[in-house]
Amino acid sequence: MSDSTVFGRILDGELPCHRVYEDDLVLALLDIQPVSYGHTLVIPKQRVAYLHELSPESSAAIGRVLPFLCRAVMRASGCTHYNVLQNNGRPAHQAIFHVHFHIIPRFEQSGLGVGWKSGSLAAADAEKLLVELRASLAEDPV
Amino acid sequence: MSDSTVFGRILDGELPCHRVYEDDLVLALLDIQPVSYGHTLVIPKQRVAYLHELSPESSAAIGRVLPFLCRAVMRASGCTHYNVLQNNGRPAHQAIFHVHFHIIPRFEQSGLGVGWKSGSLAAADAEKLLVELRASLAEDPV
Repeated sequence: MSDSTVFGRILDGELPCHRVYEDDLVLALLDIQPVSYGHTLVIPKQRVAYLHELSPESSAAIGRVLPFLCRAVMRASGCTHYNVLQNNGRPAHQAIFHVHFHIIPRFEQSGLGVGWKSGSLAAADAEKLLVELRASLAEDPV
Repeated sequence: MSDSTVFGRILDGELPCHRVYEDDLVLALLDIQPVSYGHTLVIPKQRVAYLHELSPESSAAIGRVLPFLCRAVMRASGCTHYNVLQNNGRPAHQAIFHVHFHIIPRFEQSGLGVGWKSGSLAAADAEKLLVELRASLAEDPV
């Protein structure tokens, strides 16, 4: 399929991968362009671009396997620190438009760079956000 | 409890929070030091510092609610792009030692900074990693 992503083609068996783990809903594989040693990806078999499009079943299945995979990545890479990152949209650094979670070991000289400029939550912003967040969750209940 | 984190104290009712969502296993709240407008946190009620310590039940519960919460954050903040980040260990930018997932809207002028220096996965590294990853998953099966 021409509109398939690299991950779709891996799931279709059209491209090889370094398979770490697989079940009915989830595939884990090594990233072939690792940010650090042990960099592993966890993807749903459901073919959607963004986390907000993922079914509760698929996202729960990914959540469930993450601790096991993090333990395995720690053991395999020898890392004691790591980041889990999932990007949505090109401005948010997404490059492949099939949901994927990165497990990225943090070593002294390699790993995810985290840029963090935080402010303070204003009371008026909190109030506005909570109204909208709760309205969304009331219309789209968990 | 003196060894409790800020999140533990929120769960104990000792500190207030801007509660977005709650169920038996999960609490979502606004980050009071937001990196961008709408920055939301998702935490397990299970009190562990790191994702690799989390029970499969708790991590599945977080996974399950993430798409709902991401939709709510998109609606409330107006963002179309966002990052989900979970940090483990101080060198990986963790500041509160109770597992938490950040949902961080990405706007043109604000959001998570992502530093990404990737290389190529060497065949020998892939082979070594897969042996160790699979050994770990065989001893600690999902």
